[in-house]
Amino acid sequence: MKLLVSVPASIANLGSGFDTFGLAIDLRNEVEIEYDTELSITEMGIKVEGEDLFFKAFKEVMESNGIDWRYKIKKISMIPPQKGLGSSAASIILGIAAAMEINRHFSRQQIFEMATKIEGHPDNVAASVFGGFTVSAHLKSGYGAVSMQPMCREITIVIPPFSTPTQEARKILPKMVPLEDAVFNLQRATMVLANYRDRRMLQEFFEDRLHQDLRLSLHPELKAFFEETKSKVEDPIFLCGSGTAIAIMGTHDIAVPQGWQLLHKKTSIEGIIVRYL
Amino acid sequence: MKLLVSVPASIANLGSGFDTFGLAIDLRNEVEIEYDTELSITEMGIKVEGEDLFFKAFKEVMESNGIDWRYKIKKISMIPPQKGLGSSAASIILGIAAAMEINRHFSRQQIFEMATKIEGHPDNVAASVFGGFTVSAHLKSGYGAVSMQPMCREITIVIPPFSTPTQEARKILPKMVPLEDAVFNLQRATMVLANYRDRRMLQEFFEDRLHQDLRLSLHPELKAFFEETKSKVEDPIFLCGSGTAIAIMGTHDIAVPQGWQLLHKKTSIEGIIVRYL
Repeated sequence: MKLLVSVPASIANLGSGFDTFGLAIDLRNEVEIEYDTELSITEMGIKVEGEDLFFKAFKEVMESNGIDWRYKIKKISMIPPQKGLGSSAASIILGIAAAMEINRHFSRQQIFEMATKIEGHPDNVAASVFGGFTVSAHLKSGYGAVSMQPMCREITIVIPPFSTPTQEARKILPKMVPLEDAVFNLQRATMVLANYRDRRMLQEFFEDRLHQDLRLSLHPELKAFFEETKSKVEDPIFLCGSGTAIAIMGTHDIAVPQGWQLLHKKTSIEGIIVRYL
Repeated sequence: MKLLVSVPASIANLGSGFDTFGLAIDLRNEVEIEYDTELSITEMGIKVEGEDLFFKAFKEVMESNGIDWRYKIKKISMIPPQKGLGSSAASIILGIAAAMEINRHFSRQQIFEMATKIEGHPDNVAASVFGGFTVSAHLKSGYGAVSMQPMCREITIVIPPFSTPTQEARKILPKMVPLEDAVFNLQRATMVLANYRDRRMLQEFFEDRLHQDLRLSLHPELKAFFEETKSKVEDPIFLCGSGTAIAIMGTHDIAVPQGWQLLHKKTSIEGIIVRYL
């Protein structure tokens, strides 16, 4: 019997919901696990060397349960790394969820809390663990997350060939921002939620003044592409996490520069999926 | 036949929802209007001199309709002025709504837009016009507002004898704020809305780092009272608008300093009410 654990990609921020909103995307990192005589981890038939994010998280939970781990683990990674699609959050969640399931104490809330501690931010983690559209916060009482049906079924994702390291994307943000920009985001992010039942999602509700423009500006061709596409489509458009992918709600057949990828994906109502094959 | 127009008080901000949230309170400014041989405005039997906010707004709409105004107007003002309970917004709305009703083109959306232009901010106006709990924004496409059932039926309002002029309350706010404080409010205000259906309103969701503490600090005794009360109650507590009133969700029998007023009120599902007596 094989255990399959699957974790969706996620888009954090969605413009106005900086460090707050998340959206799960049906593009998944998975592991297939079966009992064996020794531990082995492979991806596409090739042995995985060293300790990656998945293995570190897996090991931590396995060791805290004090059992040995003779497992054959096959990784299937579909989430492109370093594009702002939550691949590192997904890998950490995959490690924790797989180890918890093996040890028979799978808990989404615990996975959310553990993975957020490792990742540092709850936004990608919330979407990948619980699925759907998520609002998350770092509260005194711990990390909180609420998951809702996604506001759109289809989403268009444009992936440029270049990346922004997450650390750099955070470093370029100023420590201080105009109060009116704080209010700008606050009014728009709350409009997203206040209009949620009607799903009347205006492009304007997802506009941002706290992070997106600075991050787009790291790659002038990305910024130019974003501005041009935004003026052409009516649907909400935003940078995925800290970039470099861009997402547009709905299905859009737009031309992208050579070497850039255009994906048409569904949002994911499900977060982590655990199955036995 | 008399025309009665009634407009509720409103609380803006509610902590985290700075310049965004509003809540209508069942404490009203009203006018009774009947046709007469000339214009007269009285309050408590005394003639109102000069042009107050009500009359300026009333006059503007009456004049734009090009009719004369032989009306006897009796004002009943229950909303204490200069305490952060939206008395000026209510007076402006009252003037516009009464004149519109007399001219038979009463429209809440138009009243909302006109009153917001005069008042400068949509938050109090949205709550007083539409009632309930409101989210409002200054969008490119105009001012937007969404009204929901209030999150609580009862509210406790504490009114100190001193006031903060609204202009001063805005002047003391810094032009720049830490990015992490912007995120702090963003996460909490969105948590209010994400948890709205359950009405699971934690005190923490209404905490603020953008305006409240500076405004409380204008009156050290107010700040001390706020901090002490906050630590004693579990319910959400916040400054009303820019102060000086403080509100606590639910009914609380708390001791207030001598000369301070303690009101137990209901929130208002209805905004403007128009009736014929």
